[in-house]
Amino acid sequence: MAPKNIKILYFDARGRGEISRLVLAAAGQKFEDVRFTRETWPAEKPNTPFGQLPVLEIDGKRYAQSVAISTYLAREFGFYGKTNLDGLQIDQVIQLGVDFWNAATKYFMESDAKKKEELLKNLKDVETSKYLTFFEKLLKDNKTGYFVGSGLTLADLFVYDLIYFLKKQNMLPSQGFPSLQELYNKVVSNNNIKAYLAQRKETEN
Amino acid sequence: MAPKNIKILYFDARGRGEISRLVLAAAGQKFEDVRFTRETWPAEKPNTPFGQLPVLEIDGKRYAQSVAISTYLAREFGFYGKTNLDGLQIDQVIQLGVDFWNAATKYFMESDAKKKEELLKNLKDVETSKYLTFFEKLLKDNKTGYFVGSGLTLADLFVYDLIYFLKKQNMLPSQGFPSLQELYNKVVSNNNIKAYLAQRKETEN
Repeated sequence: MAPKNIKILYFDARGRGEISRLVLAAAGQKFEDVRFTRETWPAEKPNTPFGQLPVLEIDGKRYAQSVAISTYLAREFGFYGKTNLDGLQIDQVIQLGVDFWNAATKYFMESDAKKKEELLKNLKDVETSKYLTFFEKLLKDNKTGYFVGSGLTLADLFVYDLIYFLKKQNMLPSQGFPSLQELYNKVVSNNNIKAYLAQRKETEN
Repeated sequence: MAPKNIKILYFDARGRGEISRLVLAAAGQKFEDVRFTRETWPAEKPNTPFGQLPVLEIDGKRYAQSVAISTYLAREFGFYGKTNLDGLQIDQVIQLGVDFWNAATKYFMESDAKKKEELLKNLKDVETSKYLTFFEKLLKDNKTGYFVGSGLTLADLFVYDLIYFLKKQNMLPSQGFPSLQELYNKVVSNNNIKAYLAQRKETEN
């Protein structure tokens, strides 16, 4: 593959942009990490395909939608398994993860204090353990320590990022998910990821 | 590819299951169209991967998540373009469509009458034209009458299904989206799709 000029455009946060950065980091691929603030974003918004971030720019052309761009990068850099059925199982994990992010986003976007409290309780007590239980089972069933096949894929990176979020929000149960804990350790021990994380800017979300 | 024993499990509706049925129909691939009712679903729920429908069953093995399974079927049956970049552009359309479905689902799930009315107004006056404008532009820019490349893909089937929904709900603007109207006509004129639609059970959603 010819080397490409790659930019990831997103806010100054992990959010829905981090998974694309993680795939590029795992690949050891250089990219420009462009971050917008509340002040700089409005001027850039009309230059994005759908007025949203993240955006992937490859050799000057722009694409949007977090799942679409991270899946593309995973295919391009060898983190999408070997077979068509591997791809299905990876996408299954990603889409489950998206359902979790949607539940989390609902909480973060709620402005009514009472409703926000209810949503947080539901996120902590119901959603988090529901999704972690699904992930733990999928991981355990595959028996390799990875979600799909026997090597690192987009699915592992996606769930690593989700666990990082839960840790940071103090929402990760302290026990009960041994396979996920092992996966987390394995991802942060990956040399490329380790180098990336060592220089990553720490942000709240 | 060896012939497979394929089942699509979903409710007695189009909803998030129809896109997988449409891909199989376009491929001329036989499949078992299993439909659950409010009465029969609870007994089946524990036998599904995540307690959700749709589910794809291939040779006895079950997979879930609508986008994951329809994308798998599209790859398997040649409706996912030719290049990795085609795949990105197809996924971009699908993910935009998912954003629209999420907005529509919010309306359908709302039980408070006043809020439901507001959500419907927003869906009709804001969301629908926003997404149709994005789709119209993508389609027009590609210049082939299809969303990606020069033949039918998952993206065309997905947006056809979305337009069918809008028509049925009387939410489709009567003019202003000529490329989308052409695409709709092209999809329903496809021989395999035509044969499928001629025998499809009509449902509300």
